[in-house]
Amino acid sequence: MLTKWESEQRIIRLQNELRTKGIDGALLLVPIDIYYFAGTRQNSVLWIPAEGNPLLLVRKSLVRALKESLIEDTRPFPSSKEFPALFGEEVKKVGVTFDVVPVQQYNYYARLLAGREFIDISASIREIRSVKSAWELEKMRESGARLCDVFRQVPQFLKVGMRELDLSAEFECRLRKVGNEGFVRMRAFNQEFFQGLALSATAGEPGHFDGAVTGRGLSTAWPQGASTETIQPDTPVFLDYAGVFNGYIVDMTRIFVIGTLAPELRHAFGTAIAIQRYLAENLKPGAICEELFLKSAEMAEQAGLGRNYMGPPGENARFVGHGVGLELDEFPVLAQGFKVPLQAGQTIAIEPKFVLPGKGVIGIENTFAVSEKGGVKITDLTDDVVYL
Amino acid sequence: MLTKWESEQRIIRLQNELRTKGIDGALLLVPIDIYYFAGTRQNSVLWIPAEGNPLLLVRKSLVRALKESLIEDTRPFPSSKEFPALFGEEVKKVGVTFDVVPVQQYNYYARLLAGREFIDISASIREIRSVKSAWELEKMRESGARLCDVFRQVPQFLKVGMRELDLSAEFECRLRKVGNEGFVRMRAFNQEFFQGLALSATAGEPGHFDGAVTGRGLSTAWPQGASTETIQPDTPVFLDYAGVFNGYIVDMTRIFVIGTLAPELRHAFGTAIAIQRYLAENLKPGAICEELFLKSAEMAEQAGLGRNYMGPPGENARFVGHGVGLELDEFPVLAQGFKVPLQAGQTIAIEPKFVLPGKGVIGIENTFAVSEKGGVKITDLTDDVVYL
Repeated sequence: MLTKWESEQRIIRLQNELRTKGIDGALLLVPIDIYYFAGTRQNSVLWIPAEGNPLLLVRKSLVRALKESLIEDTRPFPSSKEFPALFGEEVKKVGVTFDVVPVQQYNYYARLLAGREFIDISASIREIRSVKSAWELEKMRESGARLCDVFRQVPQFLKVGMRELDLSAEFECRLRKVGNEGFVRMRAFNQEFFQGLALSATAGEPGHFDGAVTGRGLSTAWPQGASTETIQPDTPVFLDYAGVFNGYIVDMTRIFVIGTLAPELRHAFGTAIAIQRYLAENLKPGAICEELFLKSAEMAEQAGLGRNYMGPPGENARFVGHGVGLELDEFPVLAQGFKVPLQAGQTIAIEPKFVLPGKGVIGIENTFAVSEKGGVKITDLTDDVVYL
Repeated sequence: MLTKWESEQRIIRLQNELRTKGIDGALLLVPIDIYYFAGTRQNSVLWIPAEGNPLLLVRKSLVRALKESLIEDTRPFPSSKEFPALFGEEVKKVGVTFDVVPVQQYNYYARLLAGREFIDISASIREIRSVKSAWELEKMRESGARLCDVFRQVPQFLKVGMRELDLSAEFECRLRKVGNEGFVRMRAFNQEFFQGLALSATAGEPGHFDGAVTGRGLSTAWPQGASTETIQPDTPVFLDYAGVFNGYIVDMTRIFVIGTLAPELRHAFGTAIAIQRYLAENLKPGAICEELFLKSAEMAEQAGLGRNYMGPPGENARFVGHGVGLELDEFPVLAQGFKVPLQAGQTIAIEPKFVLPGKGVIGIENTFAVSEKGGVKITDLTDDVVYL
């Protein structure tokens, strides 16, 4: 349960941002944005004026929203006739998240509030959400502890000859039992994700996912994650999973090996660890996201692994870390073109990875919080390759 | 793998529809729509002109799209400068699915193709996709057989005292092992869904989901599906799961009981079965969707269960069935306001359910194909309550 104090602080931050931008209010339509401010993800619309009290208009379930909502004025969604009367004459500029809201929804509200100017507030919402409070960091640490618990159990069920799919099923079953909510929210249009990746033979295949690794998946309709190929000895078993608890996602990757690893793979793993160490040390307020990525790419290059960094040769992703929280793809991104400074309290999954065609995929991923002392590891488990 | 012939037939149907509507082409941006026509869900944009050959423009992964795509002209996504040149002077009206495409994406393409008129083709795409070919029906029967396999195993792992969450985990683990792809696509804005519902004590709680049953879930951020409450004897255990194989979803619900059921619950189950029988018999081309729903609601009313039909009293959903295929919420919907006739080959999950507060939730769900002889059951498993 979100606390009243958290909700109020968040609303104050948004209201400050709205006033700075000269926007009269935010009309929030996306469930997880509404949850962030109101503490409920029932189907509803949240109006946060730049000055004054917010209003939560509930479609379904009203009974449940009334129990959960931290917004004092929570009421049923009005008829189309009554809706415009809720907005005073002074409301001229209305903020909406253009990054997620579909055209049909936009047109519906634009008609209801005809004459108002609609302004894209996607970046503002994402920036506000990127900085986590102490309460949020505590939730994320709890998520991290539970996800780590499952990673610790892997040696009990990972066996040569089992299919990637079986490994997936066993991992996901244990993750569910420790309370994983399962649905991993992503914000970017076109991205879809199911829990995580349990890969071995097929880890190096190129794919649609905005990351270093996609996996083969089970069909052309779902070309992601585990396949029916079997786990091989002397090949990295790549487990990249997101755990979701109380809505908060943490993301981590570990490598398991049944047998031994070829020297090239050990070299690549060592390089990934060195990159992670460099990034963690520099995960401080003021560091520029793009510079962190470019330095990491330079380290990969110097290790002779530039072509293999963050994707199969020719299809390399140009990032090494992504914000994570209520969504898997939050701000900031340690990526080319992302020239903004880090802020204390941002939470970032750092994931230097290498794809060596024909040999395997190897790397590391942990979720860190940005602090004055550098990155604080939220996924508190040894980084070492686990040999079985 | 989609076949070339399937892809061609689908494109012909869309081109006929575009010409009928006077639209010069469809600019498809949503992955599952692109998959439906092109056989790949790599990140790309599919242009299907009303006359002539389609064009698939790939962002990621090009390597993989070139292997999978059934569109002869599959190439890298061009620069913003080169993009407009792909569209001739004759292209004046461009179809886009306004129901899913976010405003930012829309604005991006509207700028690139400035001067063209953009028209909403959401309903056309959904109507075309609602009618399944023989090839698709075969895929859905395969999905149905695999999902039924897991329902058959439930008596092996359902126990008094286990948490709804543990039941979820056990069901989902077995579903994954028979090849479930896991990610259940939904089209409606605001809807989110994770695999299914394993409920007992909390089945009757009102919720945000556009259905009769939502469950309590694990937090206010994920108020859906299993909770940590334990399974009780003499209470319906409600298992409502979607299975996804080769992209095709089937949806079914069965009731399990450890012990016995109160007479009111048995009466409600009998009513659900009678409603399902009536609907299945009338699932024929030409039947009007709304009329089927209204008749079902009348049967519930006559059984003295009107207030309990399709939701907790006061928050009842006004539908009894939904199209299902590549998405969980396809056309048609057996719902109030849906005055269109059924077509042969449409696939519909029929789900009469009753919520009896304090007693439990009971009902049935099967996926059927519309045919001249009435509904053909795709989820071929006995409807009976399973007593343990």
